[in-house]
Amino acid sequence: VMSSNASSVHIIGCGMIGTSLGLALRRVDWDVTLEDVDPRSVDEAIAIGAGRRRTADEGEPDVVVAATPPGQVGEVLAAAAATWTNATLTHVASVQTRTQDDAVQRGVPARRLVGGHPMAGREISGPQGGRADLFDDRVWVVCPAPTCAPDRVDQVRQMVRLCGARPVDMSVHDHDSAVAMISHTPQVLASVLAGRLVDAPDDVVALAGQGFRDMTRISSSNPDLWEEILRWNATSVTAVISGISEELSQLVADLSVHDDPPAHRVDAVRDVLARGVRGHARIPGKHGERDRPFEVISVMVKDEPGQLARLFVAAGELGVNLEDVRIEHVMGRPSGLIDLSVQPHSAAHLRDGLMGQGFDVRS
Amino acid sequence: VMSSNASSVHIIGCGMIGTSLGLALRRVDWDVTLEDVDPRSVDEAIAIGAGRRRTADEGEPDVVVAATPPGQVGEVLAAAAATWTNATLTHVASVQTRTQDDAVQRGVPARRLVGGHPMAGREISGPQGGRADLFDDRVWVVCPAPTCAPDRVDQVRQMVRLCGARPVDMSVHDHDSAVAMISHTPQVLASVLAGRLVDAPDDVVALAGQGFRDMTRISSSNPDLWEEILRWNATSVTAVISGISEELSQLVADLSVHDDPPAHRVDAVRDVLARGVRGHARIPGKHGERDRPFEVISVMVKDEPGQLARLFVAAGELGVNLEDVRIEHVMGRPSGLIDLSVQPHSAAHLRDGLMGQGFDVRS
Repeated sequence: VMSSNASSVHIIGCGMIGTSLGLALRRVDWDVTLEDVDPRSVDEAIAIGAGRRRTADEGEPDVVVAATPPGQVGEVLAAAAATWTNATLTHVASVQTRTQDDAVQRGVPARRLVGGHPMAGREISGPQGGRADLFDDRVWVVCPAPTCAPDRVDQVRQMVRLCGARPVDMSVHDHDSAVAMISHTPQVLASVLAGRLVDAPDDVVALAGQGFRDMTRISSSNPDLWEEILRWNATSVTAVISGISEELSQLVADLSVHDDPPAHRVDAVRDVLARGVRGHARIPGKHGERDRPFEVISVMVKDEPGQLARLFVAAGELGVNLEDVRIEHVMGRPSGLIDLSVQPHSAAHLRDGLMGQGFDVRS
Repeated sequence: VMSSNASSVHIIGCGMIGTSLGLALRRVDWDVTLEDVDPRSVDEAIAIGAGRRRTADEGEPDVVVAATPPGQVGEVLAAAAATWTNATLTHVASVQTRTQDDAVQRGVPARRLVGGHPMAGREISGPQGGRADLFDDRVWVVCPAPTCAPDRVDQVRQMVRLCGARPVDMSVHDHDSAVAMISHTPQVLASVLAGRLVDAPDDVVALAGQGFRDMTRISSSNPDLWEEILRWNATSVTAVISGISEELSQLVADLSVHDDPPAHRVDAVRDVLARGVRGHARIPGKHGERDRPFEVISVMVKDEPGQLARLFVAAGELGVNLEDVRIEHVMGRPSGLIDLSVQPHSAAHLRDGLMGQGFDVRS
């Protein structure tokens, strides 16, 4: 359509994602204009270099991006389509099917409509959370409307690549099923599990350990935003949650015959757990390889300034790169067990080196 | 009953917990004898200083600990009770009601029986995972049989304290309800969620991000051990899981009216999410205080040896103690976003200090 240098984008919604998009495209000299129902958000996004305000007399942007929650995408894009008759229209919401249907019903021409979803959410909101490199190396799912013109899709893919992200084509349905399973349902389970604590006695709450914390970390997300996401992706979300609810009911039935249960009941419970092990093994490693077998070295450190530093300095001096770090805190104890994940070929070297320097290596 | 110096303990089961118990009590000069169905485990536990083998002619131990999975506690303690007519009998299993019932049914005298559960599990098994300080500052739930002699309970509490742990009395029922909620049900939810990946297309699996990883981390646990735990705590576990299954079914119903849903449906979904936020806020902070408001500073670092070290050295030199560290990896990107949790009064100092040294501080 046009060269990357010549392109212009109008971003509607100056939250964390919209602002990051502006910053990313300013890096490659796109002309970025910004809009938000809250003029202060526009001011803040402009102040950190994400773009500028549109003036009354200027021409069409090449691309319009609705960077809003899913419920506003259709309305925002319909207004944009009416104002600008040639711009390519896209969005960055985590729901595709209903946002696309809604947009088309509101008169957005399908030939100009390309849904998109950058998989780069963080728990930071507002323009201040915006970062030019938020999308670097992230997957950005691209969901063209079925009758969308191919050059419109190319244009969005190009924008995605210029943001540093990796465009991945999916149908709206496949996208919505995928995020229902890997994002929306986990959110629901975390909320439901954490919600059980509301009426729990203090001594029960006090027993919550690392496993419970990990399982409920995302439960502190914004209920209004998530209610909207779940409602807009209800078809896919309810399919997954119904399946899980039935699986849990079956598990309750299998566990309810607990005095001398028949073998098939025991097997059924074990199968649920074993499937979990197999499913977990499919989760890709940090660099994208599946099942990458890191070795974990556990070190106990005192909970004092500089103690973690000593450990990481030692690892760095030994020339070992840490693939992952987990800190397991012990309630009320001024120390923590640090799990260092390393490449297997580095493990013995790191373990010996740390022990040689007097570190309290545990495994 | 007896002074700590004079006490002796016989530990049956040289897994990670039994071996750690031996190591902990050797620190305070208890006479520790060890037994396991696998003689190699006893050898390994002895080799790292966890105790010694019993000889044929020696007298009674003061305390016998069954350090076995729940299904073997009753049998093991019944045999011990028959062999030694005065020893106090305890165990360290994560299920109390059925283990106690089973033991009593097998002839274990209730006046000598004190259930126990150290809240110190890690994902390491076997004697090699044993550590003398595993229990330091951990909660150790103590569940005496209803007709247990008070001096027996005191004796177990004393043993718990000598292990460095904090004894907390609970009824067997309260304990089992608590662990069903904060440990056993999270395990089931993690397994069920991860199990959904088994048949998922590759491009869906590839979208799994940090939230999904956190929600499924514990799903790689041993299915045989967990089947046994769930079955032995079936009454409490099924109560919690039934409740969650029903809540999920209701959520599906509330979400299934997605075109123009009545307000009470929208409110019901939002309430589930909002309850999660409230429940999450009750989880105690690292040092035991509730709702301790750490401030999070995010720093992007390159994924190279020494880079994490540089960051922690800088934090240490600034005199700031890190309360928690989270590393968010981005698939395929040779860098990671490090979230440093610090006391609010240290946040500005750390942020300014890191930025002054050229760190890529994100929030």
